[in-house]
Amino acid sequence: MNDERILLSVTGWDPDIWVRELNRHTPGREIVLEPDGADDPSIRYAVVWKQPEGLLSNLPRLKAIFSLGAGVDHVFKDTTLPDVPIARIVSPDLTARMSEYVVWRVLDHHRFGPLYRSQQDARIWNELRDQASADEVTVGIMGLGELGRDSANKLKALGFEITGWSRRPQRVEGVTCYTGQEGFGDFLASANIFVVLLPLTGETRGILNLDTIRRMTRRDHFGAPVLINAGRGGLQVETDILTALDEGLLSAVSLDVFETEPLAEESPLWAHAKVTITPHAAAASSPKKLAGPIVAQMKACDRGEPLTNLVDKDAGY
Amino acid sequence: MNDERILLSVTGWDPDIWVRELNRHTPGREIVLEPDGADDPSIRYAVVWKQPEGLLSNLPRLKAIFSLGAGVDHVFKDTTLPDVPIARIVSPDLTARMSEYVVWRVLDHHRFGPLYRSQQDARIWNELRDQASADEVTVGIMGLGELGRDSANKLKALGFEITGWSRRPQRVEGVTCYTGQEGFGDFLASANIFVVLLPLTGETRGILNLDTIRRMTRRDHFGAPVLINAGRGGLQVETDILTALDEGLLSAVSLDVFETEPLAEESPLWAHAKVTITPHAAAASSPKKLAGPIVAQMKACDRGEPLTNLVDKDAGY
Repeated sequence: MNDERILLSVTGWDPDIWVRELNRHTPGREIVLEPDGADDPSIRYAVVWKQPEGLLSNLPRLKAIFSLGAGVDHVFKDTTLPDVPIARIVSPDLTARMSEYVVWRVLDHHRFGPLYRSQQDARIWNELRDQASADEVTVGIMGLGELGRDSANKLKALGFEITGWSRRPQRVEGVTCYTGQEGFGDFLASANIFVVLLPLTGETRGILNLDTIRRMTRRDHFGAPVLINAGRGGLQVETDILTALDEGLLSAVSLDVFETEPLAEESPLWAHAKVTITPHAAAASSPKKLAGPIVAQMKACDRGEPLTNLVDKDAGY
Repeated sequence: MNDERILLSVTGWDPDIWVRELNRHTPGREIVLEPDGADDPSIRYAVVWKQPEGLLSNLPRLKAIFSLGAGVDHVFKDTTLPDVPIARIVSPDLTARMSEYVVWRVLDHHRFGPLYRSQQDARIWNELRDQASADEVTVGIMGLGELGRDSANKLKALGFEITGWSRRPQRVEGVTCYTGQEGFGDFLASANIFVVLLPLTGETRGILNLDTIRRMTRRDHFGAPVLINAGRGGLQVETDILTALDEGLLSAVSLDVFETEPLAEESPLWAHAKVTITPHAAAASSPKKLAGPIVAQMKACDRGEPLTNLVDKDAGY
């Protein structure tokens, strides 16, 4: 196997942990660390997170690129990508962590978490009597891939009504699904809480803007709807979100992702009473849990089997 | 049916809403409001929340008492109770609301909610890298009645490991169950997060004391364990909980119930950084959702069928 190397490029991550975990699952295979290996004909697979531009352009025997993480927009920033399959990581661990984040944020808004915390700060004992039950609240999920579907199922198990929206038609049991531009308006009018798990593509960039928010018209139970973005920062227009909060078009938001990360210290989002910020921490999986599924895919590819979770390059996700 | 009246005593609640909702389900039956009716031979059923002492002692034809809410300690404060069956309200709505609260509080601690909120206050972008996955965390549920079992199932669906403890032996699929005094120590050593849904009885009063907390010995993932009490305030010794927090025996607590309610404005719990307070709001169901199940029980009783969810008077719950 020594002539079938792996090129590893993991910006912002400790590469040693990845080397150790990949080696644990594929002991015979040599791993080359970027910047080495950029023109190595023995490299068959690339495992990347935010690889440098051009790194993958000159690998004559490259068979596949594995993107660490559910989103692949970081891969496509490189305009010199070779014409090989790109696979996303879909791991049960990553999916479970994302659903945890989604359920946590939905419940915190549904159960008036911010309001009860401010009452506690003021030593006020006051039960909020307009607490809706879960079955009176609709959560609308934007993006019905692996993550969206799992979140939908876990929220359903808690009793919430669920709607969903995706670019391509999807069927999820017990979920009212809307599709494409023609279904977007009805979807936006359907929910009290919106959970965004869309990929970042040319079509979705900036989709969380004032025009979209104005079409979120339900006003029962929470007043204006709640918005939770756990997808990508590029989906949202932060000045529009602030305007929507201040005009009462949204009652609260939870943001895990931002147009620029880390979020600038001077951003007005930090101190806004209706904004809950987490630092892109919704679903950070670990090399220990991800290396196995990646190596399993490489071995399948070695046997001539098709890769799973392939990226549609035209769609960009 | 006019000779088979209902006596209603709902301290702290608007009786008119109860009258309306009970009437909706049993149109022919007359409802008498406390303080009237205390010696009315036509009264067959009493529907009570914190009834005054003696109210029920002189009703010659009373067939059953219905307690509003999952706990019945408020009924037993009256030392003059007649010897008739007492039924608790077990409604899907009440159960679902309690599980929502439990899942919300478990996730808020599991996902470092308090820490991320204080980072936001200080405009600090810092991902907490020691985020455990749910399957690395054990939630220990004290009390495996209807509420405890439903919470266990919903937490299991999110991936948490679950243990449980109860006075009488219980079996819950996928849950390691401990029983009675002999199982208490092992149970206390089993979990990272404790959820308390016990009834308040002579046996359980003050069970959440320093001695119990010292036996919660797991220190992985959260440091010291987290304690969530959604049962009754009388279960907890608040001075002991404060001591445990300050000595690092507990890393955080969420309390929905208190020794004295409303919680006194001068209580040190309000301002403690490791305490999250809600004002006995975990599972407030509505007359609209509860009246139906109560009337259904009355009709079953009229037909000579046995009541369900009967209170064991010796056990006190």
